[in-house]
Amino acid sequence: MKLDFILKSLFILIITAGKSFAQQQPPITKDKFHWGRTGNENSGYVQAVKTGNVLYISGTVAHCDSTMDVQVKGVYERIEATLKNYGLNFQHVVKENLFTTDMEGMIKHNEIRKQFYKKDWPAATWLEIKRLYLPTCKLEVEVIAHFPN
Amino acid sequence: MKLDFILKSLFILIITAGKSFAQQQPPITKDKFHWGRTGNENSGYVQAVKTGNVLYISGTVAHCDSTMDVQVKGVYERIEATLKNYGLNFQHVVKENLFTTDMEGMIKHNEIRKQFYKKDWPAATWLEIKRLYLPTCKLEVEVIAHFPN
Amino acid sequence: MKLDFILKSLFILIITAGKSFAQQQPPITKDKFHWGRTGNENSGYVQAVKTGNVLYISGTVAHCDSTMDVQVKGVYERIEATLKNYGLNFQHVVKENLFTTDMEGMIKHNEIRKQFYKKDWPAATWLEIKRLYLPTCKLEVEVIAHFPN
Repeated sequence: MKLDFILKSLFILIITAGKSFAQQQPPITKDKFHWGRTGNENSGYVQAVKTGNVLYISGTVAHCDSTMDVQVKGVYERIEATLKNYGLNFQHVVKENLFTTDMEGMIKHNEIRKQFYKKDWPAATWLEIKRLYLPTCKLEVEVIAHFPN
Repeated sequence: MKLDFILKSLFILIITAGKSFAQQQPPITKDKFHWGRTGNENSGYVQAVKTGNVLYISGTVAHCDSTMDVQVKGVYERIEATLKNYGLNFQHVVKENLFTTDMEGMIKHNEIRKQFYKKDWPAATWLEIKRLYLPTCKLEVEVIAHFPN
Repeated sequence: MKLDFILKSLFILIITAGKSFAQQQPPITKDKFHWGRTGNENSGYVQAVKTGNVLYISGTVAHCDSTMDVQVKGVYERIEATLKNYGLNFQHVVKENLFTTDMEGMIKHNEIRKQFYKKDWPAATWLEIKRLYLPTCKLEVEVIAHFPN
């Protein structure tokens, strides 16, 4: 008997055992938002999901064939529109993750982004990565926002 | 006295001052899951941590030496197994972060992923990055799931 | 009339419609932390934001011109200092996201990181990416920590 087979069997056994211990939880309530429809059925995602008092906004892109300044403005306008759909604004944003294929370009146009936050800064992480979902996009931003308790 | 020294001293002073202001919080309750053991002691992580009504699932990889379709199926099966351990399923997933070294390959095999969600899409961010923990892995997916309140 | 114009008008209409449905939420309470000041006004972020019982710590860098071992130690010391400011420690960390431009170097010096967690591992995702905010930085780590309920 090969070691590989033993390991695989053991893995299945562990998973099966795990299954039997946990009681099935009832579904959660989710308040989803997408751009005028129930979701992007092609890619398989929605623009935002609210559950409890947390709002998760998807990585947002805009005007991917344009220059960086246009993309920055477009991305934050779309995040603002998403927040507004839930009665929120940038004051409710606690975490921002920014992904770009051109960090220098993003830093150069940061003033456009900063106007949306009005000096009420979130915790943030910025990364330069190889490419986004669409090869022409230079910027994708996701945020987590919270509702009042 | 060098400016560098002044800045370092100031930094230490600030940190020290910070320490004295905050009252030590008691530990939190965490319900961890790993594959048949308490964690990956070599890398220093666990597959999932539940605290309160939130479940954080680690970046999950599978069958790293195989083709992309096999990796996609394997990754989502492992996420499904992790969710099941807590009595959850993909309905409870609110956010997905997908990291791949081959975005075109992932988009090509997205139908495999979409079957797990059954048209109940999460908020999502997809990025093409340089490499994952293991150089052979092409796909790593992490999700946040919530329990009913 | 161009299709592009119709699509744009439709988009504006949807956004406008969305606005009228959601009631404006009151602001949330945020407890921010930065290094001896209210935030980094140049980049537009703060080191950490607490809301409810969740603490979001920004992607943290340290000693960017030094070797990897020095950066690893520095990054986790700064995260520790941030946690301490809120009366927390690494026991309260539930999720870690680690971004590096040198995965092999990070893996090599993982023992330095592991000492901070004291075998109480978080859920984690590690990625090798093209570059960080500053081109000399090799490592950036963000964590989510929870307060007791």
